[in-house]
Amino acid sequence: MPIVSKRGDEMPASPIRRLVPLAYAARQRGVKVYALNIGQPDIPTPKEGLEVLKHIDRRVLEYSPSEGLLSLRQKLREYYERYNISLDVDDIIVTCGGSEAVLFAFMAALDPGDEIIVPEPAYANYMAFAISAGAKIVTIPSSIEDGFALPPMEKFEALITPRTKGILICNPNNPTGYLYSMKEMLQLRDIVKKHDLFLFSDEVYREFCYTGAPYISAFHLPGIEEQVVLIDSVSKRYNECGIRIGALITKHKHLRGNVMKFCQARLSPPLLGQIVAEASVDSSRQYMLDTYNEYVERRNFLIDEINKIPGCYSPIPMGAFYTVARLPVEDADDFCRWCLEEFEYEGQTIFMAPASGFYTTRGMGRDEVRIAYVLNKDELRKAMVVLRHALEAYNSRTS
Amino acid sequence: MPIVSKRGDEMPASPIRRLVPLAYAARQRGVKVYALNIGQPDIPTPKEGLEVLKHIDRRVLEYSPSEGLLSLRQKLREYYERYNISLDVDDIIVTCGGSEAVLFAFMAALDPGDEIIVPEPAYANYMAFAISAGAKIVTIPSSIEDGFALPPMEKFEALITPRTKGILICNPNNPTGYLYSMKEMLQLRDIVKKHDLFLFSDEVYREFCYTGAPYISAFHLPGIEEQVVLIDSVSKRYNECGIRIGALITKHKHLRGNVMKFCQARLSPPLLGQIVAEASVDSSRQYMLDTYNEYVERRNFLIDEINKIPGCYSPIPMGAFYTVARLPVEDADDFCRWCLEEFEYEGQTIFMAPASGFYTTRGMGRDEVRIAYVLNKDELRKAMVVLRHALEAYNSRTS
Repeated sequence: MPIVSKRGDEMPASPIRRLVPLAYAARQRGVKVYALNIGQPDIPTPKEGLEVLKHIDRRVLEYSPSEGLLSLRQKLREYYERYNISLDVDDIIVTCGGSEAVLFAFMAALDPGDEIIVPEPAYANYMAFAISAGAKIVTIPSSIEDGFALPPMEKFEALITPRTKGILICNPNNPTGYLYSMKEMLQLRDIVKKHDLFLFSDEVYREFCYTGAPYISAFHLPGIEEQVVLIDSVSKRYNECGIRIGALITKHKHLRGNVMKFCQARLSPPLLGQIVAEASVDSSRQYMLDTYNEYVERRNFLIDEINKIPGCYSPIPMGAFYTVARLPVEDADDFCRWCLEEFEYEGQTIFMAPASGFYTTRGMGRDEVRIAYVLNKDELRKAMVVLRHALEAYNSRTS
Repeated sequence: MPIVSKRGDEMPASPIRRLVPLAYAARQRGVKVYALNIGQPDIPTPKEGLEVLKHIDRRVLEYSPSEGLLSLRQKLREYYERYNISLDVDDIIVTCGGSEAVLFAFMAALDPGDEIIVPEPAYANYMAFAISAGAKIVTIPSSIEDGFALPPMEKFEALITPRTKGILICNPNNPTGYLYSMKEMLQLRDIVKKHDLFLFSDEVYREFCYTGAPYISAFHLPGIEEQVVLIDSVSKRYNECGIRIGALITKHKHLRGNVMKFCQARLSPPLLGQIVAEASVDSSRQYMLDTYNEYVERRNFLIDEINKIPGCYSPIPMGAFYTVARLPVEDADDFCRWCLEEFEYEGQTIFMAPASGFYTTRGMGRDEVRIAYVLNKDELRKAMVVLRHALEAYNSRTS
């Protein structure tokens, strides 16, 4: 039998993924499982996006250009203008989801052995794409006590080596919901500029900033315009994760030219998704506002409820639709597994993501979970009742 | 300015891609350009595939499972049964086009420095995916004089090193149209078995075999079932290249498990494409037959016409919808460029792919082009008139 690659073996199987079959089995047993584990919102896709599918009058569903449809890229350029991000259409490369944008950014910027610095907890798949590229993610822990604020710059500086090629942030943050302040962003700017690094900035949750604090894009930072690689996706803002349309945006001409080679090798991003995405950019202000208001309400409700449960603590997330909460358990991996495998309350249980999967530093986040508020308030209410009972039962079981 | 990766710089910019702006400019000048350069057929997508888009009644275009929709995988399992390929649904992983299947196959099977042997000329993007994976493609030339038959096994054996992890074939072949015989496939089987290698088999042109000789899938070869990694795509058989739906199929459990980690990192293949692909598998026998007959007629016509032009030679391709032809020019790269940039005949010109892009051995294929017969017969007729005149004009110019 031929031997598989070490690279594939090294890919971490995320703790969420390991739990998926358990959630499936629970549902098979007739248990209602509240899925708080992934960023798959229950909010409808804009009607403009759904409607356009009914009016595709193409005879042939053919390749689109490797960089994406010009009409979509023009529409996206206008969209970014609304956020005071000034782009040329050529700066925008359409990708198969934000995922492909991360992969191609790493492939085109990093060679095997190169390093990027990432504050943790961080989106687990960054690690997978780094492994694909043979690159190394070096993490700096942020802590729940500080509300997951950006770690001090000295900690970044201390980790910079001759192999460091960039810093990666997700803003607003998945999994913590943290929104970087202007002060933090300017500090990042200074360090990126000083050491001539790329700033990879995943801003797919841009629409979801709840505190009145401004959203600062990496492209708003003066003096590093050509060092920014923006990762974006329409998945979250228009609730169309399945269409797989994202974007890689950069003003670094050499990088962009090389990213295009990876794009050309895979021929084209999905045509139908591009058509839906283009229509979705025209979704009404009311749609965007309703979505926003819905998340604000869910967030307020959820965080209140979590903090009312004895021993639980969640900072107030400023953006995105996740929070990382501390639970009164020693091993959240085991607790999440137990909820799916051994527990039910009135025929219900909850599926949460153990936070350990978002850290690379061993032992970090052991008592934390990520909760996505992608269910409506009524479901969230029921889920929090289940969580309270689950913690009681789990802790009386083990004590 | 931060430095990009060497990997990105090493990616070859294909000679076809370099010509694309020239074709665009020619069209801007009002010249009719016959696009024989890429495998984008003009044949309509099945009506089942187009129609299903009008009846999507989903509220949310959500993530599909990372391995693809179960209903599509079940449908594909039935489809392969028609070709005497017996699979479990779990053997089939849906990918974003055949491209992603190649990338994930390489990522999961090959470590940096590992080698795979590929007969050339070969599909140029294999090289790009190998560079992405840090792996090395070692080529064995096949020749137009032998109709691009599989090179003798001694040549394969001579190239096997401790780093050799597999052999890659495309059957029926892009770019040559060659169809491997049972004898050749059994030889491949023996060598793969003897050296415990993977056999990566790209069979996306399975439907298009024209000579009455049987199509032999790598999965038809006894004794290496767990060594085969089949690359597939619905793009060509249903004329829906833009939907980006392919498949990676393997019975090697460890490999499959690791491929799934790459799939999970990118979350999901395109939902809408999967819906269209599933409906397309139900396209009528008549649709498939009409498509087949159309290609047979085009092939017969095209090869006749090429061989009537003084100094031109094309073997008769047995499958797919390409041929590699020899032209009476020293530098087909220059000739293809010249056709787009400096030539027109009655307001028309032709866009062909210089064959050099399909070889890695320097100097091979210098006088060859790949011609895709993806235009209707009337257009092909006009294109061949243009080719004849172009060759005359080019050679009187340079002589």
